[in-house]
Amino acid sequence: MRGTVLYAPRDVRVEERPYPTVEAPTDAVVRVTATCVCGSDLWPYRGLDDVEGPSPMGHEYVGVVEEVGGEVRTIRPGQFVVGSFFASDNTCEICRAGYQSACVHRQPGAPTGAQAEFTRVPLADGTLVATTAAPDPDQVPSLLAASDVLGTGWFGAVAAEAGPGKTVVVVGDGAVGLLAVLAARELGAERVIAMSRHPERQRLATAFGATDLVTERGAEGADRIKELTDGLGAHSVVEAVGTQQSMLQAIGSARPGGHVGYVGVSHGVELHGERLFYTHVHLHGGPAPVRRFLPDLVDRIIDGRIDPGLVFDLQLPLDDAAEGYRAMDERRAVKALLWP
Amino acid sequence: MRGTVLYAPRDVRVEERPYPTVEAPTDAVVRVTATCVCGSDLWPYRGLDDVEGPSPMGHEYVGVVEEVGGEVRTIRPGQFVVGSFFASDNTCEICRAGYQSACVHRQPGAPTGAQAEFTRVPLADGTLVATTAAPDPDQVPSLLAASDVLGTGWFGAVAAEAGPGKTVVVVGDGAVGLLAVLAARELGAERVIAMSRHPERQRLATAFGATDLVTERGAEGADRIKELTDGLGAHSVVEAVGTQQSMLQAIGSARPGGHVGYVGVSHGVELHGERLFYTHVHLHGGPAPVRRFLPDLVDRIIDGRIDPGLVFDLQLPLDDAAEGYRAMDERRAVKALLWP
Repeated sequence: MRGTVLYAPRDVRVEERPYPTVEAPTDAVVRVTATCVCGSDLWPYRGLDDVEGPSPMGHEYVGVVEEVGGEVRTIRPGQFVVGSFFASDNTCEICRAGYQSACVHRQPGAPTGAQAEFTRVPLADGTLVATTAAPDPDQVPSLLAASDVLGTGWFGAVAAEAGPGKTVVVVGDGAVGLLAVLAARELGAERVIAMSRHPERQRLATAFGATDLVTERGAEGADRIKELTDGLGAHSVVEAVGTQQSMLQAIGSARPGGHVGYVGVSHGVELHGERLFYTHVHLHGGPAPVRRFLPDLVDRIIDGRIDPGLVFDLQLPLDDAAEGYRAMDERRAVKALLWP
Repeated sequence: MRGTVLYAPRDVRVEERPYPTVEAPTDAVVRVTATCVCGSDLWPYRGLDDVEGPSPMGHEYVGVVEEVGGEVRTIRPGQFVVGSFFASDNTCEICRAGYQSACVHRQPGAPTGAQAEFTRVPLADGTLVATTAAPDPDQVPSLLAASDVLGTGWFGAVAAEAGPGKTVVVVGDGAVGLLAVLAARELGAERVIAMSRHPERQRLATAFGATDLVTERGAEGADRIKELTDGLGAHSVVEAVGTQQSMLQAIGSARPGGHVGYVGVSHGVELHGERLFYTHVHLHGGPAPVRRFLPDLVDRIIDGRIDPGLVFDLQLPLDDAAEGYRAMDERRAVKALLWP
């Protein structure tokens, strides 16, 4: 089968790979309907995370179950399923508290790589969410978005306690940030301020429900948010980048007692304890427990209430994965969908 | 009148000072019934915070209102009152959200120093809580504790979301940590683990409701908490020290999705973003909005439900304030009460 492998920074190849098989009795093998390139894939692509030898890539997918192991009870061959980037048992105490991405049996969600024709999924019963019927083909991109970027943006908005009466700021105009805008709006926020200076991304943010756009960054950006909120700062801020600047911008945009939900994978962030102490913000985040939200998100998509698939502004055959990486790296595309 | 002044590290003097007067029409002057030395007073005392010339000391007090300014509406001369370390209007949007210690009109709560016979209190209507009658003299130490250490420990426990069914860890066995134990218990926690290796403080922690004592510190301490919680970590952790070691011990003791309430004034704390990201903890703290909790805490004390005054294991005449500082610095006393 065809699968995507990162050999070294900026060296992405789609090549013949072994068919994944059921290895543990709790595994499933999924025939991938659609997959995509993640913002976090760009860290090793850019050489900012180490690349230790050829690595199969991809952890976002939707597809049809091909085969299941002997201990898989609820997932069945033929079902259309949505997975996420961590496999979880969904039964341990941590999963039951809603932190499936810290499951005591956590494993990579697609160890053989999801940017491929087939992928192996561990802990299939806990990890996969099946739709009741095969989805409308138009909904496949949105279901794929639920697999990571929507689930992550949603977690960011929940961690920031977005809700009715709240002013929510979103720092970051990548797919996760844009979908945090959608999430904040769906969760009932009164005002959603997207921080973006990129016209195409501003347009998407507005389509997803942003009420205001702010182009300033860093301390200037935080000052602008204060101006827009009677000098107080926002109730809720989603951080969806992961750099020192974006993190301080997010914290500086929140009011005392406000909530910062941070879902950008931290790179080089150092928080000064004393400064944080006097901000009085709530801070919560980490790798999103997408599984917590998946059943609800799948319902909203199937019912046509949300259309997060709009973030895929580039669609390519799987064999052109390298172009997907390039386009995202150069910010020519928000997010690249790959069709196997 | 007599008042306490810090001249330089370890140079505390009680000397004649001018009587405080009403300066703004929202001020009150309070005749101090009891005051005390704060753990945070030890930072400048030890030279770890700068001492810029002679500084009047103290921000914890209970007493009787002597005089009020022309715009004070609800506080009246003769009332017995409890204040706290920040003055707040208690009407702005931040106060109404429960963050009086970040009030938009925030001022120091006792600008002329509370370790004195009289003290000036700004924004009297917003800052002071009056008891319905003069309290029983036995209750004065507990009401004084409410003014800072109980209010701060309580906020730590609330920020850590202590409550029924929860396992709560308290890092720090100073007065704030010990009263966070009391708060966690009052808030209904199932299990309260105090981290202390000091026999007298362990005894107090047990008296306040600790169910377990852990003597290990740092990473070993966090490992011990994991062992006591099925390998998961605690639901709630209160950090009541403010050092790098105690902060990492607190974060390391919490389970994924758990809550860390940090109320130790941060000194030299640096949080590594990536490590924090993968812990999945909630982090919240800062200078406690004691005013939020005061009416409830005063009721609990007057009703005899809690006795936080037990933290005062040393009581001295005001003129012996220097000995109070020395005893706390040398950890011979948990907390020194001063009688003017």
